[in-house]
Amino acid sequence: MMADINSASGAATPITLAVDAMGGDHAPKEIIKGACEGVKRLGCRLILVGDEPHIQRYLSRLKPSVDVTVLHAPEFIDMGENPANAIRRKPNSSIVRCARLVSEGKAQAMVSAGSTGASMAVATLILKRVPGIDRPAIASIFPTMKGQAVVLDVGANVDCSVENLVQFASMGSIYSRDVMGVRDPRVGLLSIGEEPTKGNELTKAAYKALAQSDLNFIGNIEGGPLFEGGADVVVCDGFVGNVALKVAEGVAKMAKTLAIERLWHHPIYKLLLIAMSPGLRQLDKDLDCEEAGGAPLLGVNGIVVISHGNSKAKSITNAMRLAIRAHEKNTLSHIKKSLKAQVREIVSV
Amino acid sequence: MMADINSASGAATPITLAVDAMGGDHAPKEIIKGACEGVKRLGCRLILVGDEPHIQRYLSRLKPSVDVTVLHAPEFIDMGENPANAIRRKPNSSIVRCARLVSEGKAQAMVSAGSTGASMAVATLILKRVPGIDRPAIASIFPTMKGQAVVLDVGANVDCSVENLVQFASMGSIYSRDVMGVRDPRVGLLSIGEEPTKGNELTKAAYKALAQSDLNFIGNIEGGPLFEGGADVVVCDGFVGNVALKVAEGVAKMAKTLAIERLWHHPIYKLLLIAMSPGLRQLDKDLDCEEAGGAPLLGVNGIVVISHGNSKAKSITNAMRLAIRAHEKNTLSHIKKSLKAQVREIVSV
Repeated sequence: MMADINSASGAATPITLAVDAMGGDHAPKEIIKGACEGVKRLGCRLILVGDEPHIQRYLSRLKPSVDVTVLHAPEFIDMGENPANAIRRKPNSSIVRCARLVSEGKAQAMVSAGSTGASMAVATLILKRVPGIDRPAIASIFPTMKGQAVVLDVGANVDCSVENLVQFASMGSIYSRDVMGVRDPRVGLLSIGEEPTKGNELTKAAYKALAQSDLNFIGNIEGGPLFEGGADVVVCDGFVGNVALKVAEGVAKMAKTLAIERLWHHPIYKLLLIAMSPGLRQLDKDLDCEEAGGAPLLGVNGIVVISHGNSKAKSITNAMRLAIRAHEKNTLSHIKKSLKAQVREIVSV
Repeated sequence: MMADINSASGAATPITLAVDAMGGDHAPKEIIKGACEGVKRLGCRLILVGDEPHIQRYLSRLKPSVDVTVLHAPEFIDMGENPANAIRRKPNSSIVRCARLVSEGKAQAMVSAGSTGASMAVATLILKRVPGIDRPAIASIFPTMKGQAVVLDVGANVDCSVENLVQFASMGSIYSRDVMGVRDPRVGLLSIGEEPTKGNELTKAAYKALAQSDLNFIGNIEGGPLFEGGADVVVCDGFVGNVALKVAEGVAKMAKTLAIERLWHHPIYKLLLIAMSPGLRQLDKDLDCEEAGGAPLLGVNGIVVISHGNSKAKSITNAMRLAIRAHEKNTLSHIKKSLKAQVREIVSV
């Protein structure tokens, strides 16, 4: 079933990633393809988790030039199932086995494009929350005119407290610094007007708390400045963040679809577009909400990257890159340390 | 000061519009230009409200071929002022005078690109709410792949109740039918998943109430399907709606800016783009969140269209078109009638 899983957890480098081969609309084909490409490009070890005969069939077609370990996990959690119940009822599902590999130290990070709810549930129930974090958050990496912004939470927590938002801001800042390489990340609060008095009850209270924190808080931020690159970290509750994410994806998709309809289907314009294809490819990449490959789940004891349900090979490779960078930069231990410092501060007050 | 204002309120056609000449980033020049263009194209009467010498200076430069009445209103409400206080302190401000013209029947509708808060305040305090409506809502017209969708509320009410959302849905449906010409408008509830159980406390409760209403409720809708044209009316609280609007505008602006940077600044691509300009102009129009020209304020005793703060002439002309259509279609009396029917229903239960 599984060859050298223990050796994979050995003390030395390289990092081992557990990838859920069964999750996502294009699983397992695109997941396996992207994961093998990731091994080649990123020099990591890979454990593909899922239905072994299924995976082996694709591997034998793909003939990857890299070493791949397969861990048989015959069960699968569907998008429609209640995540918490499903992970209890299906201990041999691919997502549960991925989380176990991380909790047992046999893998240093996991990537899944399956049900977000199931990823959240295994992360919270198997990996457990970092002490001091009340709610883990899904951080999405938004493209901006100047680069990227980390937006959190985008769907893990529908109703949030002020404390949750401050914790999100703190975790987001560490992630931005470690993984995105931003020296002193500017934290913005997603709201509907720049003034501290603008917003709903939650954001008005969170504004005050963030202003008193030691984070580099720059105030409220709206959609316009967000996409102009006005902040490096943007905090919001999971309902608002998820709406913002889906609206951004929806507009980008509409722009692309209408551009194809209006221009690509026109015989002359089509030729002109072909002549511009290097520029258009770059533009498409700049505007791609999924270019980052996945959304890190912050606040749990392990590195978890949640990929989009419709991820293709490229997204999986990019998600693996995010996971490796978080591991190399010790993001998890930085989050833990920062929370310990906050707890000390509160105790000493 | 003002020539024939009483005759403008005469029984016969055409409709008279009051346009706030002083509101918006490009006031008064672009407002005056757009309003005069509106008279020419739409065949309405126009009362330009604002600082008369200022307006006359622009009119004498513009030399419009149409009749324009000017109503002197020397005061102006700034974006930063508290709207409710400001309209009490400045009875001769352009926005207050616009609302008075409508409340006195001297104009049938008003258009302003000034402070949204001030428009809301004059509408509520001078025109008053329609009996049965607890909160008026700002309805924004979003572009979609298949046409347009009415999204409300986009900022008038930050914290909403279930009843508010049901009233928004009802007003939005009437607006969609009357002004957008949709026969049986499909109503969606902006949320984070299609299932009734997905969302926050407000949306889960609103789902049940909308499902029991006699509206054509199609369930929850997310950003993706919204921009694919999956609903004609989309309801949400004003905080979420405003975030969605600003995010949509932000993404559209980012796409345009990056396209210009990547393609227009390239010597060869620029020539190719020039050759495609008719197609690109159409695309730009299709994606323009401001193409509608303004957002109708629904639920007050009068037709009020709030234009974007950065409106140029074209937006003002388009906003006047919206106002005229709402007047011609008797949208206001349809909203009143539908509420009376609802009240009767509740009483008879």
